Amino acid sequence: MDILLFCIFLAATFGAGATGALFPTGEWYKGLNKPSWTPPNWVFPVMWTSIYLLIAFAGARVAVLDGSAYAMAFWAMQIAFNALWTPVFFGLRNLKGSVPIMVCLWIAVLGATITHMQLDFWAGLAFVPYLAWVSVAAALNLEMVRLNPDQKSLQLQNL
Amino acid sequence: MDILLFCIFLAATFGAGATGALFPTGEWYKGLNKPSWTPPNWVFPVMWTSIYLLIAFAGARVAVLDGSAYAMAFWAMQIAFNALWTPVFFGLRNLKGSVPIMVCLWIAVLGATITHMQLDFWAGLAFVPYLAWVSVAAALNLEMVRLNPDQKSLQLQNL
Repeated sequence: MDILLFCIFLAATFGAGATGALFPTGEWYKGLNKPSWTPPNWVFPVMWTSIYLLIAFAGARVAVLDGSAYAMAFWAMQIAFNALWTPVFFGLRNLKGSVPIMVCLWIAVLGATITHMQLDFWAGLAFVPYLAWVSVAAALNLEMVRLNPDQKSLQLQNL
Repeated sequence: MDILLFCIFLAATFGAGATGALFPTGEWYKGLNKPSWTPPNWVFPVMWTSIYLLIAFAGARVAVLDGSAYAMAFWAMQIAFNALWTPVFFGLRNLKGSVPIMVCLWIAVLGATITHMQLDFWAGLAFVPYLAWVSVAAALNLEMVRLNPDQKSLQLQNL
């Protein structure tokens, strides 16, 4: 594997992952009604770090193969929606508004998993934990919308 | 050009561009000290819409070519940092914190411009307005840091 190529893909995940540090969970998140199966807070950075390493690896493997156009387009799409979700959920506290973003993310990750798998078994496999985790995150997002019907999003223009 | 491929790249830019609608300029931005050459507000969405269309076109042209690995890695990197900048600047109002993000974005766009140009003249050309605009945006960001030394970023944990 081309290490420099891996590092550029990893830099992309770092851009998306930086939202986790910049828009942290806090008292507001603690106060939300959550389903009983919500993972503890420490699980999230562990999962995301693992996923980012895995998909940078997958991207670097597949980018050099012929016929990787769709895989690369889905790779780019997933990282954009990945970067968008956290500021909308934890920044704007917009539970409902983060659902369509999660849907777009889920579609992009599904597309990336399939197209990577078609070209390279290990790259496809590296996307599977991501697809599983985004499915959990989507269910969690929907449950939080349902359990917090009166939650208002932050009105930035009034601050 | 493969239209579906273009649409997936365009979807990625839509994810990044949605930050412009979700974290709009407002009274806070109006109150900042800005350099005399700051473009009027209406210029920003016009520029970004044009740039997003151009780079989706560039991505779709280059993705299908042999040897596009680095071009695709830089394409993915630029869209991640593009999505990150707006929530940090307009959401967190973190002028200083948005500078390193802008630097990473500028590097990614430079890398994308060069690698696209090496493979396809029109794709490379399509990245040139983006590189020019991000250079302006970086200068603007630095000037705003300099002109607003007492600007505090939003403390989400206190809201």
